[in-house]
Amino acid sequence: MFDPITLKLSVDPLILSAIKEDVTSEDVTTNSVMPQACQGSVDLICKEDGIICGLQVFARAFELLDEKVNVELFVQDGEQVKNGQLMGRVTGDIRVLLVGERTGLNYLQRMSGIATYTHSIAALLEGSGIKLLDTRKTSPNNRIFEKYAVRIGGGNNHRYNLTDGVLLKDNHIGAAGGVREAVAMAKEYAPFVRKIEVEVETLDMVKEAVEAGADIIMLDNMSHDTMKQAVDFISGRAEIEVSGNVTKENIAKLIDLGVDYISSGALTHSAPIMDISLKNLHRI
Amino acid sequence: MFDPITLKLSVDPLILSAIKEDVTSEDVTTNSVMPQACQGSVDLICKEDGIICGLQVFARAFELLDEKVNVELFVQDGEQVKNGQLMGRVTGDIRVLLVGERTGLNYLQRMSGIATYTHSIAALLEGSGIKLLDTRKTSPNNRIFEKYAVRIGGGNNHRYNLTDGVLLKDNHIGAAGGVREAVAMAKEYAPFVRKIEVEVETLDMVKEAVEAGADIIMLDNMSHDTMKQAVDFISGRAEIEVSGNVTKENIAKLIDLGVDYISSGALTHSAPIMDISLKNLHRI
Amino acid sequence: MFDPITLKLSVDPLILSAIKEDVTSEDVTTNSVMPQACQGSVDLICKEDGIICGLQVFARAFELLDEKVNVELFVQDGEQVKNGQLMGRVTGDIRVLLVGERTGLNYLQRMSGIATYTHSIAALLEGSGIKLLDTRKTSPNNRIFEKYAVRIGGGNNHRYNLTDGVLLKDNHIGAAGGVREAVAMAKEYAPFVRKIEVEVETLDMVKEAVEAGADIIMLDNMSHDTMKQAVDFISGRAEIEVSGNVTKENIAKLIDLGVDYISSGALTHSAPIMDISLKNLHRI
Amino acid sequence: MFDPITLKLSVDPLILSAIKEDVTSEDVTTNSVMPQACQGSVDLICKEDGIICGLQVFARAFELLDEKVNVELFVQDGEQVKNGQLMGRVTGDIRVLLVGERTGLNYLQRMSGIATYTHSIAALLEGSGIKLLDTRKTSPNNRIFEKYAVRIGGGNNHRYNLTDGVLLKDNHIGAAGGVREAVAMAKEYAPFVRKIEVEVETLDMVKEAVEAGADIIMLDNMSHDTMKQAVDFISGRAEIEVSGNVTKENIAKLIDLGVDYISSGALTHSAPIMDISLKNLHRI
Amino acid sequence: MFDPITLKLSVDPLILSAIKEDVTSEDVTTNSVMPQACQGSVDLICKEDGIICGLQVFARAFELLDEKVNVELFVQDGEQVKNGQLMGRVTGDIRVLLVGERTGLNYLQRMSGIATYTHSIAALLEGSGIKLLDTRKTSPNNRIFEKYAVRIGGGNNHRYNLTDGVLLKDNHIGAAGGVREAVAMAKEYAPFVRKIEVEVETLDMVKEAVEAGADIIMLDNMSHDTMKQAVDFISGRAEIEVSGNVTKENIAKLIDLGVDYISSGALTHSAPIMDISLKNLHRI
Amino acid sequence: MFDPITLKLSVDPLILSAIKEDVTSEDVTTNSVMPQACQGSVDLICKEDGIICGLQVFARAFELLDEKVNVELFVQDGEQVKNGQLMGRVTGDIRVLLVGERTGLNYLQRMSGIATYTHSIAALLEGSGIKLLDTRKTSPNNRIFEKYAVRIGGGNNHRYNLTDGVLLKDNHIGAAGGVREAVAMAKEYAPFVRKIEVEVETLDMVKEAVEAGADIIMLDNMSHDTMKQAVDFISGRAEIEVSGNVTKENIAKLIDLGVDYISSGALTHSAPIMDISLKNLHRI
Repeated sequence: MFDPITLKLSVDPLILSAIKEDVTSEDVTTNSVMPQACQGSVDLICKEDGIICGLQVFARAFELLDEKVNVELFVQDGEQVKNGQLMGRVTGDIRVLLVGERTGLNYLQRMSGIATYTHSIAALLEGSGIKLLDTRKTSPNNRIFEKYAVRIGGGNNHRYNLTDGVLLKDNHIGAAGGVREAVAMAKEYAPFVRKIEVEVETLDMVKEAVEAGADIIMLDNMSHDTMKQAVDFISGRAEIEVSGNVTKENIAKLIDLGVDYISSGALTHSAPIMDISLKNLHRI
Repeated sequence: MFDPITLKLSVDPLILSAIKEDVTSEDVTTNSVMPQACQGSVDLICKEDGIICGLQVFARAFELLDEKVNVELFVQDGEQVKNGQLMGRVTGDIRVLLVGERTGLNYLQRMSGIATYTHSIAALLEGSGIKLLDTRKTSPNNRIFEKYAVRIGGGNNHRYNLTDGVLLKDNHIGAAGGVREAVAMAKEYAPFVRKIEVEVETLDMVKEAVEAGADIIMLDNMSHDTMKQAVDFISGRAEIEVSGNVTKENIAKLIDLGVDYISSGALTHSAPIMDISLKNLHRI
Repeated sequence: MFDPITLKLSVDPLILSAIKEDVTSEDVTTNSVMPQACQGSVDLICKEDGIICGLQVFARAFELLDEKVNVELFVQDGEQVKNGQLMGRVTGDIRVLLVGERTGLNYLQRMSGIATYTHSIAALLEGSGIKLLDTRKTSPNNRIFEKYAVRIGGGNNHRYNLTDGVLLKDNHIGAAGGVREAVAMAKEYAPFVRKIEVEVETLDMVKEAVEAGADIIMLDNMSHDTMKQAVDFISGRAEIEVSGNVTKENIAKLIDLGVDYISSGALTHSAPIMDISLKNLHRI
Repeated sequence: MFDPITLKLSVDPLILSAIKEDVTSEDVTTNSVMPQACQGSVDLICKEDGIICGLQVFARAFELLDEKVNVELFVQDGEQVKNGQLMGRVTGDIRVLLVGERTGLNYLQRMSGIATYTHSIAALLEGSGIKLLDTRKTSPNNRIFEKYAVRIGGGNNHRYNLTDGVLLKDNHIGAAGGVREAVAMAKEYAPFVRKIEVEVETLDMVKEAVEAGADIIMLDNMSHDTMKQAVDFISGRAEIEVSGNVTKENIAKLIDLGVDYISSGALTHSAPIMDISLKNLHRI
Repeated sequence: MFDPITLKLSVDPLILSAIKEDVTSEDVTTNSVMPQACQGSVDLICKEDGIICGLQVFARAFELLDEKVNVELFVQDGEQVKNGQLMGRVTGDIRVLLVGERTGLNYLQRMSGIATYTHSIAALLEGSGIKLLDTRKTSPNNRIFEKYAVRIGGGNNHRYNLTDGVLLKDNHIGAAGGVREAVAMAKEYAPFVRKIEVEVETLDMVKEAVEAGADIIMLDNMSHDTMKQAVDFISGRAEIEVSGNVTKENIAKLIDLGVDYISSGALTHSAPIMDISLKNLHRI
Repeated sequence: MFDPITLKLSVDPLILSAIKEDVTSEDVTTNSVMPQACQGSVDLICKEDGIICGLQVFARAFELLDEKVNVELFVQDGEQVKNGQLMGRVTGDIRVLLVGERTGLNYLQRMSGIATYTHSIAALLEGSGIKLLDTRKTSPNNRIFEKYAVRIGGGNNHRYNLTDGVLLKDNHIGAAGGVREAVAMAKEYAPFVRKIEVEVETLDMVKEAVEAGADIIMLDNMSHDTMKQAVDFISGRAEIEVSGNVTKENIAKLIDLGVDYISSGALTHSAPIMDISLKNLHRI
């Protein structure tokens, strides 16, 4: 769950914006036939097995419309749910249930899809001590939801954005005049609580990065052998991240290398949604 | 392309919000090593075959950061592009190229993914006269981009949101006291330029809807035989939409029925992204 | 009344903006003499006969300032009220009563004025089956209030704005290359739940519009005879709107024509306000 | 004209908000038939005699949509215009001309209506030395436009809102414990650049107000005789405002009294709009 | 205390913005170790003698994060407090106490510093009848807080900003063509509830200002003798403000002059903060 | 200077908000006497020796009002300036010069004050290898300006806010159950690019922190001897920060200790402003 402060400052405004996307001024259909409030209830049903995620966001889609709506939840984020399972029940003015439905489900389906997919990849790394990281390849204006879903699915978060983490790539190194210079400039400029990560492509760069005092070294596009040499050379003097496609085939090899982190853009940009629906809307 | 007014009023604010998600206050890495502006150029390269979509949005991610950036495009939205193809080039302050990259690509990959997937489904309907429609199952705060991508892929748009279209479902009909009453109430209440669509589940409801003067009738969850009878009964007195999974297997049967529209949520919620990247960033 | 969702998403922000127009930071007069809260009550009195409209908006002007204010209402929107009638009572911190008064009355007087005027015109059409429509000639940033007041007064709403209705005028037809082409392009481009309306000036255009499948035909600037021929030609194949001045003199002729809708900009741009005031403020 | 700072900080945001009211996301009609920019021109024609006001606001409605639009004006605010007179010409992308038209005219008609009506009342006071003042009875979210129109029509502005002027009414005086106490408290609390105005109903209150050092005294609801005695008593020691209906009948009497100001809510809440339209849109 | 309307419209949005400055999305430290709410309490302790000011703002920093937080206060704004004094206690979710602490104290320390400093200067003027005024030299986006602190410290407020007070300086006088013309133009243009203040540098200008009917005359950069002559000449026909450094040395001379107001920028731009802290956070 | 992206996303909105604080709707004085644009120029003059800082922000205060204003600068941020020195010249519409003056100077004086004060403290540490850090004790809604001024003055930035740095204090450690547990939880929860800082009060905590893998250890409230033992124990295994008052007296002792960082809240909360003014405004 998001803590109440994050919810208020960062999450609610995005949900409200999504609601406005779906309701310019009113639900004209519902208002045509229901001029008055009318109490009802609807069930939240899972249509696929997976890891549920985003229940609080789902609930907010209704609560932000009308604080009198009651959302009961029978599961919690991170739980394994089954096709057909009753996960919750929303009770309140039917007009509100009809308006909040689509926005609530759009979030819940996407977040659960990411948690479920992340969980399946994290499972491949189980026992290896390697952490699975996300990237900045998120849906625009959905990063806070998607990074949360990665954590719920058993992954960890890389930097949130360009402001809160230093990652020196080849263009930065070129601009600085070398790995050593780049690391020194970042240490001088960035708030001192930031770790300095350097992306390297050759063993020479690995050495420079270690000597420059990089906190994290990202091995980019290296052959397995070169990675092995890099890991040996670094020998605990910096944390090691490998970025790239994690598949059942290559996972074993990466695990053997002894790296600390594997990052994957697919966790957020390619997870299929989880099918979930609201059923049995009825007056009470 | 979005017209300049839509761009200004609805599209730019969302892109700007997405940029702010990625840059709370500054790109700390880039600012560490590049205290001054520095001109450069980078290539937009396709990494997969597909229908490109969102080039204007991609360009805005840079232009909104710095109006002096120049984005040259060698293809246009809707064009079939090939893996490896050079699609454009962005020229300007390298600091801006580095900051705009992720947001620009996040939009372009997602929109191109939707256009490509929509195109593949629309192809199945070619020659049938049936139009392929999207739904409201879009990523939160991305509807305007995703509905545009559906059009670029060869689909058509259903209602944009709850405010701009009337769709009477069973709960509305129940609240009104019947199909006839619901249609009458909607005609009375809604701005008179709205069509009235009714979702029906039985032949009896089909009859009521036609008699009540519904403009569009959505056949929901009907067997093929019932749909056939419904189409025969309606006989041009209303437009007909079928909602549901379109697969290679069932598509032929739906085409034979003679319906007007098929809608599919998968166009927006399940299209895989198209892989695209920026390469060869260099000073100029 | 606005439903709670519309109130929250669209109405409250406008009322709050109007309040801020009247209170940059504080009511300096009241704060000079009342440093502490002080309970009081004030009466809402009608100063003219008419149709009251906007009571909920009036109440919100106080509730948005202080949720503890209590607004009792003895009438409801759409009711015929009389000069001198006590319509409600506002109770709470006198400082809030003094601050909310002007904004609350400014809305209530304007909305009641529109409802009253609309009602007087709608009365002329009673029994004819013709619906009275508003236009987009509303006070800037007051459309949602004024279109609501038209409905309360017995009118119906034309399209809300440029986004949610298609109305092809001569320039659109010229750009498309003809009525047929324009209608076809609109059907292809616009969300399929929109009706297509065409504004026509000649009988030839009427014919083209009918044949192109226009849903609504607006007769513009036609002589009575031409209108008569147009109505005969259309013969139920499209709805018919006549736009223009409705006066006691011409109303009978329009009714005889058998059109479906008459639209009038005067409903919103020229209705005189209804005089209403707050009286008898006293401590309790 | 608004100076460029006021325009940017206060006026443009309101115009933009009014535009968004009229264009949720796009002009669907225009976009159906004009996918590309297309240059054109349209004439601004007066349909009634009056005082034109709001030309800059009219122009901004187009310029805010597209800075390349050119608005030529042949008259200026405050000028007497005639039915049929060509007042200006707007040239640019026809799509922008079509979208900006309604918002631009809604402002121009309303502002010109107020200027014209104010001018007619101010004429009654000509030569008397009495200034005509507006009130806070403005259309919500239109105060800055309406107060400007009053000035253009030859009136003067009373306080802008509750924050920038002190007006002690009976409830304030009651809370303070008397006129003397109220004036003293206001002088102590309010920024010292504010004048202190007191609303009085009896001669006793007039005396108290003068002695308390009120800067302005508003005579409320007094008989002509009492007003005369009040003016005599005050004898230049404070400015005098009379609030109330100004008609041809009572105007002469008020002028004879020798008051300084007459305020009228009707200037802004009851001025009829001035009919103005855009004609002859054509490609160039 | 700010009244509830000012709090809601003007104060809360600024506090919220300050909180967002300190919490982009979450308190990552606290959320690492406290995934659940946990009740606690913390003491507000004074670390220096002075005049306390801003307690309501301090409390809002917590209440805006979580309305369930309880802030008990044992002193009130304007009270003299002592080093070591327990001034209040905040009770609620410890996560909220940790997040609100810095923003709450940043406001409280600054406002108390200004009140304390103002109080020390106002003391020098005690008994003289001269009022101490602030200026517009406030910290950006903190004016409402700092002007309030001046009042709490015993000062009075000059105009709030450029909109709500007229102060004609040499450039304005030059543009108008003279003092008389400038005053006349200001009286014509500005809302009539504004006083007209003129800044003068010579005795000639003093005379012109008095004759033009200026309400307030600011003596700028004059020798003591010239000021004396100016005060004699004005002789109660206008209020007199002296702007400039108030020190123990010059204060006696200014007092003798018989001016009405002394203004000082230092009240807001140079007051040192008052040291205050939160101590003894513990679970309850 | 702020880079163009930071300027646009984070800096300009705050400056604009500060301008609005000073101009609710217009500069009523200036508009009274200057109805038309009028070109002029004004000099930026230093009134005290110091380190100048905030010139870009000063310029933006004018440019945001009117992009045609030209701000020439003869010095740059970080330069030592002298009393009386001409630092720049602003040229443009005098109305804009008059409106932007106060906001521009309010920023410039405060930022230069902080840079000057930081510079004086940093000088005490010169040659020691110890870096001077700021804190979160900044003026509300001015953090981005004040942290920048610290850098210009020769200091470095601690974490920007609660989101972008981990600092485990006693309450966090208590909640986690111990230093080891707190560090482990922070490493698991926080984005992996964050360093983990722990605030310790005893040698035992120092040991635990080192063993738990803390990246930075902040010595809080320790005697000089204990600090010495702590530094010896840590022996390069973590960075060391000392927080507290830096004075000429204690600085030598801190330098001898061999710590890495000293942080000081006074840099931002107690730096006196630097006196700067605009002079010689004249028409051109």
